[in-house]
Amino acid sequence: MTETQTADLMIANDAYYKAFESLSMDGMKGCWAQSKDDFCAHPGWEILRGWDEVRASWCAIFENTGYMRVQITDVAVTVNGDSGWVSCIENIYTVADNRTFHSQVSAVNIFINTAAGWKICAHHASALSNMEIEDEDPFTEN
Amino acid sequence: MTETQTADLMIANDAYYKAFESLSMDGMKGCWAQSKDDFCAHPGWEILRGWDEVRASWCAIFENTGYMRVQITDVAVTVNGDSGWVSCIENIYTVADNRTFHSQVSAVNIFINTAAGWKICAHHASALSNMEIEDEDPFTEN
Repeated sequence: MTETQTADLMIANDAYYKAFESLSMDGMKGCWAQSKDDFCAHPGWEILRGWDEVRASWCAIFENTGYMRVQITDVAVTVNGDSGWVSCIENIYTVADNRTFHSQVSAVNIFINTAAGWKICAHHASALSNMEIEDEDPFTEN
Repeated sequence: MTETQTADLMIANDAYYKAFESLSMDGMKGCWAQSKDDFCAHPGWEILRGWDEVRASWCAIFENTGYMRVQITDVAVTVNGDSGWVSCIENIYTVADNRTFHSQVSAVNIFINTAAGWKICAHHASALSNMEIEDEDPFTEN
């Protein structure tokens, strides 16, 4: 895999997390392959198959989330031809009732290289920990 | 993707689960790419990176497991060039103290097509449920 391929894949992965934390369905739509082969397993959920099911799940999540920031750590990228995958830890910060929660989720995102660039076709995530934290959301400007 | 590619990938995926339920390190070794890019997230575990860490985890799991059968359901296969991935539900039956336990795990397995055939390079699994069941292990011959 070339450095350019890896960099392009990371840009696509970053765009996915930007859409995620921005609660943006337009952004999310632009990131996905939008195919019948797409699948998505949110932490603890059954596997959702096909873009229609995946899209509906993001709509429901976004409608029920007020504020979220996601910082990814422990990132590894592999490119193999026109396929690539990113594994990482998602550090998810949410705020509710003036309390900040931090959950850690391990995730793998699979991408395919299309005429329109790298598009995510699979997301599989599992919870590692959930805790309330004392500090302010580290992503909020003071 | 052709039917042959899909069939070959399913054979590699079946071999992986055969090695898993047989508690066979030789079998498991033959299934993996054995690369520094391999990674594995067992349910609730941190992401293990590189074949050395992945191999050590399977050794530990196999040493601490007496009997296991794995039946996969809800299987979907995608082949994209020399990459492929299988998502499925792992129905895992274990027996301890004459009691049978059934856990359901959702998993995604990523494979690369090498000179030696399809090899798994990533396994990401997350627990869906755990329960004790009344029935005998359905895989035991009466």
